[in-house]
Order: sequence, then structure tokens, then C-alpha cells
Amino acid sequence: MKISIQELKAKIIPLFIHLKPAEREVIADYLIYAEMCGGGIGTQGIAKLAGGSPIQDIIPTGEIKAQRETPVSALLDGAGNPGILIAQKAADIAIEKAKKAGVSIVTAHNFRSSNGAQSYYVEQIAKQDLIGIMCSRSSSTAVAFGSIDPIFGTNPVGYAFPTTSDPIVFDAATSAMTFYGCVIANARGEKLPEGIAFDKDGNPTTNPADVIEDGALAPFGNSYKASGFAMLAELLAGPLANGAFIDNKTYDKEWGAAIVAIDPKILVDMDKFKKDCSALVAAIRAARAKPGDMIRLPYDRARENYNASLASGTVEIDEVIYGKIFG
Amino acid sequence: MKISIQELKAKIIPLFIHLKPAEREVIADYLIYAEMCGGGIGTQGIAKLAGGSPIQDIIPTGEIKAQRETPVSALLDGAGNPGILIAQKAADIAIEKAKKAGVSIVTAHNFRSSNGAQSYYVEQIAKQDLIGIMCSRSSSTAVAFGSIDPIFGTNPVGYAFPTTSDPIVFDAATSAMTFYGCVIANARGEKLPEGIAFDKDGNPTTNPADVIEDGALAPFGNSYKASGFAMLAELLAGPLANGAFIDNKTYDKEWGAAIVAIDPKILVDMDKFKKDCSALVAAIRAARAKPGDMIRLPYDRARENYNASLASGTVEIDEVIYGKIFG
Repeated sequence: MKISIQELKAKIIPLFIHLKPAEREVIADYLIYAEMCGGGIGTQGIAKLAGGSPIQDIIPTGEIKAQRETPVSALLDGAGNPGILIAQKAADIAIEKAKKAGVSIVTAHNFRSSNGAQSYYVEQIAKQDLIGIMCSRSSSTAVAFGSIDPIFGTNPVGYAFPTTSDPIVFDAATSAMTFYGCVIANARGEKLPEGIAFDKDGNPTTNPADVIEDGALAPFGNSYKASGFAMLAELLAGPLANGAFIDNKTYDKEWGAAIVAIDPKILVDMDKFKKDCSALVAAIRAARAKPGDMIRLPYDRARENYNASLASGTVEIDEVIYGKIFG
Repeated sequence: MKISIQELKAKIIPLFIHLKPAEREVIADYLIYAEMCGGGIGTQGIAKLAGGSPIQDIIPTGEIKAQRETPVSALLDGAGNPGILIAQKAADIAIEKAKKAGVSIVTAHNFRSSNGAQSYYVEQIAKQDLIGIMCSRSSSTAVAFGSIDPIFGTNPVGYAFPTTSDPIVFDAATSAMTFYGCVIANARGEKLPEGIAFDKDGNPTTNPADVIEDGALAPFGNSYKASGFAMLAELLAGPLANGAFIDNKTYDKEWGAAIVAIDPKILVDMDKFKKDCSALVAAIRAARAKPGDMIRLPYDRARENYNASLASGTVEIDEVIYGKIFG
């Protein structure tokens, strides 16, 4: 269904009765961004307002605070806030420190929800002429390294680089699909693709409910190497964030994130760097496509969806999810 | 075939007539490490001394020098040296700067060969109680994002984290296999696995010669997401290193690398961090294995091979490759 961006925002904001007005704006802006990018099939937007633990029910225990800080780093205690608020604060601090020191790392823990799409935060960093690299961990959902047990979270990794035009943006779960992808498939009564999911006994399944009930997702490409990237996210956003890790018992209790921001100027000429990044994109777009396929860079579809939504002033959202939240 | 470590080192060192004695040691130490880890089937060791462009034939144009430097960063001009020498210097500088500033990034370009296994450098960083993350680019060898053209290099990504015992180490090409894997398969007259390689016209092939002659490898897991990690390596070790990128015309001319080192102490308590990293490994090892599979962490086999080799004082190397170099 189509809804005006204004109307959707006006409907989201009052849901967050436990947050301050400025915080409600931050969350609403994120959720609308995710829906604008998702083109009606996104998994990182208002789906987070539906289901068993909707994020508007989170009651923070306090303010987000730096527990440890240096000119190049900060560790944030999220004080039980929604992940989106904490990640936005982490990105803001990473930008500020990288602009002064050249490079920064900010980690954060004590979230009570996922922070959503990494693209949202890293693109903001790239729009400040910095490189942004981000990863997050969540409760254990993905098998790893020959196991059938859920070990790592869906552990997304995102990055963005400035160019002479739109930033290069990449954002992907290191699992075969996102957890909210399973939640949405389950709400719609849809099956999962073959070969990417296991039930709690480790048997292959295509039923999203089996994943949600102590089952597990495969790493992307069913690859051992993908598990290595999932482990990197788990280490940076878990132990390096003073938070939980490999933990499937506290689904609603502990997420974590890590952001690295780099000012390219400390290494190379900024103008040349942005031109090189643009030339890199152009070279990929100029490659021969596989017959029946097309060259498509990460974030192309999200940006197309976002721009179309911006132009029309409306956003395409999932009717089932909408009904569960506002119906 | 088995050879004593001492004997192999004594045979390698005199090959490097264009380098200073200390530099020959650095390269020999690396190559022997790679062979010790490889257990006779490694692709990152003395195979680099065979083939059309053996690394001992490289004549550097000068000394490796910092072109730009800050307290948290350095850009190195490799002056046409073998990649191993440049990467070792980059790792040394990254360690020194991260110990002082808390975090560092070092990029390097103008290599005349690959720097080999990222594990070698990142493990050194982790042994200094730092987190090491490294990636490298090489000439275009892997298709990406729906293409049949070689776009990215095999672009390995490696990382290492300190624990209370051996570091956690991960190192993987973002392509389905390494380029030297193709070189070795070709030398042995072996086929590649199905579904991971294309000839120069984009047709599937299992002939390693087709890859070497302007063909291409798939990304790992045949995954679009793997291409995203390959692109990250290409961006950090190409444009951010002031070097070449997406380039399959200068195979013997331009590699690049990027290393990030992080002192965990700037974010968290060091003792707790190392204990947490060890606990993370223990939790993975305690998971249920898939029937017929086993839980195996990255680098387990390499470390087993390395330790067995160290204990015996001998190393298992490929007889065909050995014959090509020393025969």
C-alpha cells in the first residue's frame, strides 16, 4: 500500500511514548528512510514496530553515555535504549572524532533492539567526506563453521565511501537473510528459499517459524568464509563493545555495534580519492553482464526506491505489517 | 616432499640477489611460514618463486617510504618492492602507531607482487595485544555484481584478535579461490571445481589455464555479498592507498594493501577483552556439529600444520613447485 511520508511519520511518532520528542524524530526518520529504500519489501523499517517485541515498547533505563573515551574512540553504554538511537549517537561521535583525529572507532552495547540498516549510518558518514565502516551483532541466529547451532547474529556489515556524486554504499547481513525477513515471511505465511535455514534440531527447513523458534540461518552463500565475516562483526560489536556475544538466550536484551570512520585526507588527496572512487564505480558499471543478468551495484535498488519515494512524497509499505501496527 | 626448514631457508635466501640481506630474511621467513601453515597444499608460499613472474626477479626502484604520515596513519610508497617487504613494514608501522594513538591505518601501493597470506601480518599485530584487520588488492581476477569480466582482484581480507592463548585468526580470498591456487592446479594438470570459474568469454570452465588467460573467478559462495567485501578491499587498498584499482592490464605492476590496528584498551578492559575473545572461541567449539561435519575455526588447520612443522623442524612442500624453482 502507498502512504504519504508525512502521514506515516505522524503515525509513528506518537507510538514512542517512552522517549523524548527529539528521540522520537530520530527513530521516525530512520524507519521512514528504511521504508523509502525498501520499496514495499524492506525488512529494516516498520516491521520493527510489529511482532512480539516492538521497539516502541522499550523503556530505556537511562541516557546513552560514554563509558570510556579517547580522542580517537568512545565506548557507549546504550542504557537499554532502542538500537537506532544508540547507533545514531555512535555515528555522530565517530564523525566528530574522525574529523579531528583522522580516524575513530566507536563501539556501543546495551541496546534493547537492532539498529536496523547499517547503510543509514554509514551513508551519513560518507556524506561528511569520511569513510564509514560499521557492523553490528544480535542474538545468535546463524550457524557457523560446520555447526547446526545458532552461533552468530545476522551480524550485518555496512560501509560507505564518498565519491564525486552519490556515496558508494554496501550493507548486508552476513547470514543468508535477515531475521526480520523471517518475521515478515512468517507473518505472510510464505516459505523461505531452500537450503538457507535449519530447525532447532539442525534439519533443513523452509518454514520461517522454525528459524524463529530456536532454529538458525545459514551464512550467506552457505560459505565458511561468510562465517568469518560474521565472527568479525561478533568480535567488534560484542567483546570490543563490552557487550554480549554468542548469545541466543537474551534476544530482547543485548545488541551491539562498532563504527570505524576514516578521513581519507590523512592518507591521500581528497579530490583524487573521490574521483578514483567514482571511476571505480564507473568501471564496474562498464563491465560485461552475465547473459540474463545485469550489473547492479549494492544500494542501487535502495537508492532508486528512496529517490522515487522522495519525488512522490509517498512510500510503499507492507499492508500486513501496517495492519499489525496501526490497524 | 619433506625438507628441513633450515635447508629451505638456505635455498631461498640466495635467490633474492636484488635485495639487501635483512630484506631476504624477511621474505624467506614469510615464505617458510606460509609453507609451514600450508602443510604441502598451501598456495601462498614458494609457489610465488615459480611461474612467469617469480618474486625473486623483482628489481625495486628504491626504498619503501612514507608519502604521507600522521600520528594515526601512514601511506607507503612501496617503490616497486616485493609485496611481502612492504606489508611487513606497513604492519610494523601500524603496530607502532596503534600502541601510541590507540588506533592506526596504514595503506601501501606500488608493489610488484602480492604480499601473500594476510594471516602472517595480522597475527603479528594480535601478538602485540592489538586487533589487526588487513585487506589487499591485486589485478582483476574475480567477477562481481552480475558481470562476467574480471573486476576485483582475489582481494583477501584477514583479521586477528588477541585472546588468553593463541590469537583468533581469519584470512580468506574474497574470490572462490586464490589466483595461486589456479597457478598450482595448472602446473599439476588438475581441474578446478565446477561453478567457480569463467573463461575470457564468460563461459563456465574448470580449466585453470582459462582463468589465467584473461578469465575470471567467482566470488566466494557465488555471492553478490562476497563481491561487496571484495569491493571494500579494492577501495581501501586501491584508492585509499593512492594505487591502481580495477585493473587487469598491469598484473605485474600494482598491488596494494590496507591495515587497521586497534588497541582494545581504548575501549574496554584488556584482560576482560582477551577472556571474552577466548570464551567466544570456546562457545563456537562447544556447538553441535552438522552430521558428517565438524566444528573447525579459521586458521585451525594452518596452526596445526605450523606447529607440527615447527616440532619436526621440517616442512612439507609441493614437489612440482619445488622442482620448478630449485630443480
